[in-house]
Formats: sequence, structure tokens, C-alpha cells
Amino acid sequence: MTETASPSKPNDGKEPLSLAPPRGMRDLLPKETALRDWATRTILETYEQFGFSRIETPVLEHLQNLKGGEGGENLKLIYEVLKRGEKLDKVLEASPVERDQLADLGMRFDLTVPLVRYFCANQNDLLFPMKAIQIGSVWRAEAPQKGRFRQFTQCDIDILGVKSAVAETELLIASAAALINLGFKDFRVRINDRRLLTAMVAHCGFTGRFEPVFIAIDKLDKIGIDGVGKDLLEHGHGPEAVEKLKAILTASQSESADLTTFAASLQGKDSNGVSPELSQAMQDLSAVIDGVQATAENQYDIVFDPTLVRGMGYYTGPIFEIGMKGYSYSMGGGGRYDNMVGKFSGREVPACGFSIGFERIIGVMMDQGAKPKDSREKLALIFDPDRDKIADVMKAAAKLRNHGYSVSAHPRKKDMKKQLDAFLQHDFAKFVAFRGEVDNLEIKTLGNK
Amino acid sequence: MTETASPSKPNDGKEPLSLAPPRGMRDLLPKETALRDWATRTILETYEQFGFSRIETPVLEHLQNLKGGEGGENLKLIYEVLKRGEKLDKVLEASPVERDQLADLGMRFDLTVPLVRYFCANQNDLLFPMKAIQIGSVWRAEAPQKGRFRQFTQCDIDILGVKSAVAETELLIASAAALINLGFKDFRVRINDRRLLTAMVAHCGFTGRFEPVFIAIDKLDKIGIDGVGKDLLEHGHGPEAVEKLKAILTASQSESADLTTFAASLQGKDSNGVSPELSQAMQDLSAVIDGVQATAENQYDIVFDPTLVRGMGYYTGPIFEIGMKGYSYSMGGGGRYDNMVGKFSGREVPACGFSIGFERIIGVMMDQGAKPKDSREKLALIFDPDRDKIADVMKAAAKLRNHGYSVSAHPRKKDMKKQLDAFLQHDFAKFVAFRGEVDNLEIKTLGNK
Repeated sequence: MTETASPSKPNDGKEPLSLAPPRGMRDLLPKETALRDWATRTILETYEQFGFSRIETPVLEHLQNLKGGEGGENLKLIYEVLKRGEKLDKVLEASPVERDQLADLGMRFDLTVPLVRYFCANQNDLLFPMKAIQIGSVWRAEAPQKGRFRQFTQCDIDILGVKSAVAETELLIASAAALINLGFKDFRVRINDRRLLTAMVAHCGFTGRFEPVFIAIDKLDKIGIDGVGKDLLEHGHGPEAVEKLKAILTASQSESADLTTFAASLQGKDSNGVSPELSQAMQDLSAVIDGVQATAENQYDIVFDPTLVRGMGYYTGPIFEIGMKGYSYSMGGGGRYDNMVGKFSGREVPACGFSIGFERIIGVMMDQGAKPKDSREKLALIFDPDRDKIADVMKAAAKLRNHGYSVSAHPRKKDMKKQLDAFLQHDFAKFVAFRGEVDNLEIKTLGNK
Repeated sequence: MTETASPSKPNDGKEPLSLAPPRGMRDLLPKETALRDWATRTILETYEQFGFSRIETPVLEHLQNLKGGEGGENLKLIYEVLKRGEKLDKVLEASPVERDQLADLGMRFDLTVPLVRYFCANQNDLLFPMKAIQIGSVWRAEAPQKGRFRQFTQCDIDILGVKSAVAETELLIASAAALINLGFKDFRVRINDRRLLTAMVAHCGFTGRFEPVFIAIDKLDKIGIDGVGKDLLEHGHGPEAVEKLKAILTASQSESADLTTFAASLQGKDSNGVSPELSQAMQDLSAVIDGVQATAENQYDIVFDPTLVRGMGYYTGPIFEIGMKGYSYSMGGGGRYDNMVGKFSGREVPACGFSIGFERIIGVMMDQGAKPKDSREKLALIFDPDRDKIADVMKAAAKLRNHGYSVSAHPRKKDMKKQLDAFLQHDFAKFVAFRGEVDNLEIKTLGNK
């Protein structure tokens, strides 16, 4: 990716053209595109085996939909599309021009807002429950930095309409299968529940909105237990609540976290027993963990992690993340968000989703030199432009294609060694054939002299 | 597609949300998405067998690149992206606000401008010649009408760096193979050459720029030979030139058009013989026609059509279109555009391309009820949420998946008949299994009672 504008050239006296893509955006070379296509296809085919179907929404959404959602920080990063024609003229006639009236559409910054709109708009034509796959680009005008792009691919599955924890279990088993099919192993699913987090924070005696406390806990990996405590004290939370939370966090880290033990620890001496909501949360988490373990066959594992928070405020139940040994960041995550459809349409619909960190996964695969498996061997058919008729070359190419090769015909260049070396270097062809007669083709492996 | 805004709902007192996608844009239901994915994959795999590789460029381009190109009418249809942050503040401080300063990026309206920029920006990392596939969305703010959308998919192959007509021949054979693999047959390739058109118009004695004369000839299908003549006279062209052109058009329609006869007819009594340019054009066209015929095996045919123009002004050599019996519009087309890279970068690079009319092809396939071939049979696994453990359901699902089914697990609903009918109606499942024990699964075909 080039982040600075490359030299540009004059163009018939018009404004100079920029050769580089826009800042923070990428041209994808054939090799990376092939790997991404293979990964996309593998993920899609895996999810289809679990009964998910791909859907597509437009890249542009009504701006008020994007801004009215729960996108948090992302709302500031929307690429806004200028109104057109008379609508724009009218806005520009006003003085001063109203900033908020200039744009009517925006480029999607995630696939969740469009999914919820799609579901509400098309529910009469959709099977209920809906099991959707979305794979597509999203845009965020973020400050460019290494490994972070302004256009990037998201890869989500969502189940709308299932209240049972069978939904979360399917999301996790299907996503783990996708990762396995991509060649990953030794990964770990961490799972928690927003209702448990709420119970924990309430148990410690925090007051006011809990979301800021969750955000502090979310920093645990980076700043440690003492750091979380300090952060909370600085934000004015009571020392007693903070100390109680620190004790729970310490206990949950020192031993292999166990769901039942942890839930029991939330019952104080004056406990009135487990609340129905906490009881349901424990039952759901147990079901998901058991369901995943029943099919994981030691290829990956799942652990309860009472400190897992996940960033987005819209989660309402189980939340989960998949991490890989040797990589600090997550390879994907998700959770249940039962209130979002209701906020959009007034109809309450239970929902949960999982998002694979597509760009991260591709990054790891590129680091590891992963290559898509080509179904056909690639062959360059070299001909003599002065002697060979194109029709004869085409017949020879068709014949080689029928023999299972991918075939590209090329007029022989003066420096044929250089020509063939370039084919090999760019992974364009592994074999070369020289046309004698149609029925007389020499096939050689490139690089073997 | 819904073109009018559907009823919207209040959202916590914020601006109301629109459920419908933006005007002229579509939500794609699972069935159409599956067909499009299958078509995309088929086209991609076919082109790969001809040595093409997919590349990707960002959706957004620098606005001056889009506006500086040869997009013709499309330049008026660009979705422009508002500048961000301080850059926008600065523009809005001016009074009056300059319309042209509001946006810095635009959404691509075709894949050709981005291709040329991509090639120029990345030539050090690319194999030369480059054989590129692009499949992606483009955006045009056109007046919405039936079958025309503001976001639609284009599907292009291009060869940059090959002067020989082997390039056009490969484009056509590969594109015909893609259509055949999609299930189309009985189609016809029409081919002409911009240099022949130029020679024809010069021979008739037209003066001034030839492009307007080409545009008139391009209307032949719609308005007939007399209509073309009338159109030209009304635009002030001399009656003698118009009559001469009408005679040539009549001759080319009345008999099976033959390249040699046609070219000979362009030589008047005072002819000084065939010009080198015309001679090269005839040689190229013959080579392409022979090359295509040599491999078409009666699955489709190719004919010389001296009246074929193709809209875009940037073509410089052979031009072609593929038409289907029973459909008036073309299913794809392209041609040679040797000057475009040079205009962009100053480096002269021969180029030609073919664009499949993806949306039209999908439209025809939907009309014909075409379905992608699923590799797996789809099965819904029904369980009893009160009795069955999720872990046992997941084990049963995994087992069925190992037997080659796509499996989705669903809690049994009160009205199970309705539940199963919906699966069948939405093509979601063809089989259903009821969980007794893990090793005791009843599989039934849905709809067979």
C-alpha cells in the first residue's frame, strides 16, 4: 500500500492524475487477491454447510440510518456522499451552508447496521429465523496506520430469530470449522456473558451506568488488574467496589476459571440466591461450552473467561472471541444482541452474530506464505508470431486446456529466457509448451533446465 | 428493489430510519445472491483457465482521476464523497462555497479507469503483459428505471501489453467459454474494427470529426438505414457522402458480410490500393475470426459486421460484441484501446478488453429459473428444546455433515408443519432429520409425506 501520492503526470492540460490509490486504500496484486478469494470461498462454503446463506446489501446507506445506530466511534468515520443535482443546489444557496445538509448517503462502516435494516425491509421474503452470511467491504476514514486500512473486508454470520443458545453454539462451531478449513489450529474460544458481567459489577457494589466499568475491565490484558483498579478509582468509583472487583478478577485469573465457582462467588453472605437472569445466563453459557466441546475433537478449546467484555455496547447475552497462540489480537468474535432489531423496527427479534477478523487472518496467512491450492497447473504456450497462425495456437491451447492445464498463449520474445523467468517469478506459469505442430507439443517444467 | 421509501419508524426520538435501501439500489435475497455467486465463480474459474488473474482496486478513486478520463456521459453520474475534517471546514468558510471543492474522492463508475491507474501504479510488481480479471461493483447516479440500477456489477478481462491479435482472440474464446459454462448457447460474436469504420467513412467522403458519424451508424439497429441517412443529413453532412454510406450499409446487410469483399468495396475507381493501416486491420480481423472459428466447435459463431460501432470513443482497433438469440441487447463486448494507458502515464501500452454484461446475464438466468448446483444436499435437523441437550444436537449435526449434508439445527416449533413448509418454500432444506438418539436419526425428504 502506498500512503503518499506518487508522482503524477500531466493529462492534456487537465488536473494532474494521481497514480496511487486514495490514502489508506489498497490496490491488491494478483497473488494477494488469489489468496483472499480462496479464503472467502473457503469461509463461505464452510458456513453454507451450517445452513447459512449469503446476502448482500448496497454499499451506500441512508446517512440517517448510519448515524442513528449504535456505531459508537465509527459514526465519526463515515464517508459521506454529496447530494446530487437540484438537492445540492438548494443546500448551497443557503448562507451559511449547513454542513449537515450536504450529504444524504454514506458508505457503510460495518455490516451490522445494514443487516438489521435488510432484515426489517425484507422480512416478508425471508425465512424466519434468518441465517445470513455477509462478506463485503466497509469504509472508515481512520487515521491510516500499519495494518489498518480505510477500506477493508468484514466477514459476518448472524442468526436472527433464535432465542436458544443453539444459535451461539452453531456460530462458534461453524466459525471454528472455517478457521480449521483455512489451515489454522491451536486456537481458543473465550466466552463470557453480558449478564454475568452485569451481575459481577452489581455484586461489587458499583453504582450508575455499568458500561464505563466494563470498558475499564476490557483493558485488563493491557494494563493488568492494578491498572484497571487505578483507572476505576480515577473515574470516581468507590474504593470498596474497586477492591471487591480486583479480588474477583484475581481469583478468576489465578485458577482455571470455572463457571459454577465463579457464579457462586457472586453470591454474597446476604445473598438471596441466584437471580433468574443470572441462572439463565449460566445455563446458556454451559450449553454453549458443552456443545462446542462435544464437537471440537481436541482441534481447539473453549474456556469461560469472566473478564471478557467485547467493545460494542449493544451486546445483551453471551459474548465470545477466538484467539490464536502466538498472536495477541483476536481472530474474530461476536455475541448476542437481542435489542437491536427492536430499536430499528419496533419488533423484538433475538439475534446473535460472529465476525471473522478477515484482514487479520489474511495478514497471518500472508506472513506464513500460505498459497491457495490451484485446481489446475498453469502453463504458458509460447508461439512464433512470424510463423504460427493464431488459429493453430488457439487449437493447441484448447487441447492443453482439455488436458487439465490453465493455458495462456504468448508470442515468443527476443529474450525468451527473460520472458520465461518472469512467468516463474510471478507464479504465472509452472509449465511451458512450445508449439511445433498442433499434435506435437513439447511441455517443460519451468526452472528445470 | 424498492424505489420509494418504505414507512419508517421512530428511533428514540432521532431522525426516522428508512427501511428501504437508497433509491436505485438493491438488497439481494439469498436465492439471487447464491445464483450471482455461482455465476461469478464460474466466470472467474473459466478466465483463470486462460491465464487471467483477478485483481482488485479500491471502490473510491481520486475525483480528478475519474473526471479526467474518457468516461463521457458517466462523468455526470459520479457519486462524490465529501471532504472530511479540516479540509471540509476550510471549503465551507469560503463564501460562496465552491461546489467543485466539496469532494475529493468519487465512487468508480466503471472498472477501466481504475484498471489503467492500477497498471500504471503497480507496473514494477506486475508481470508484463498483464492479464487481469476484475469483478466488482460500480456506481452511477442514473435516473432509476426497470432493470437499471445505481450500484451494479461489472465483470471485465483486459490484456495490457500485447499488440498481436492473439490478445483479442483469447478475450473472445475465454468469454465464450465463460458463457458456455454458465449454460448459454447459440450466441453470436459480431466483430468490426475502428480502422475499418474510419476507412469506410473517409471513403464516403465525410469531412470533419468522424466520431459523430460513427454515433449515427451505431443507431442502425434502431432506426434503419434510412433513419441513419436522415440523421446525418440533419446534422449537416453532404448528401453525396450520406448516399455513398447508405449504399455500403445496404450492401453489407443484403449479403452475408465478407471481410475481403467489404474492404475491396472501400477502394474506389481512383484507388491507390489498400492503405497499410487498413491492411493491418484486415489481417487482425481475419486472424481473430479464424482463431475463434478454429475452437468454437459449432457451439457459437463469429461474423464480421461492418456496422458495429460500440459506444466508447477510446477504441482504436478491433471491436466486438456477443449477442444471444431472442435477446435484442448484447451480453458483453469490448475492443482494443491502445491509447488510454499512454494518456494516463505517458507510456504507450497496447491494450484490449472484454466486459461481460453481468447484470443482463443474471437477469436472463433468473428469467429462466437457473439455479446454482449445490454440492451438498441441505438438511434441517429438528430437535426438542425441552428434552435434547444442545451438545447432543451438535454431535448429531456434525455426524450428518460428515455424511455430506449441509446441516442447520432448529428447535421444534409448536406448528411443525408450518416450520417445515417454510424450509421447503425458501429452498432452505430438502431433507429433515429428527433427533431420537445420536445414533438414531430419521431422515425424511421434505414434501414427501
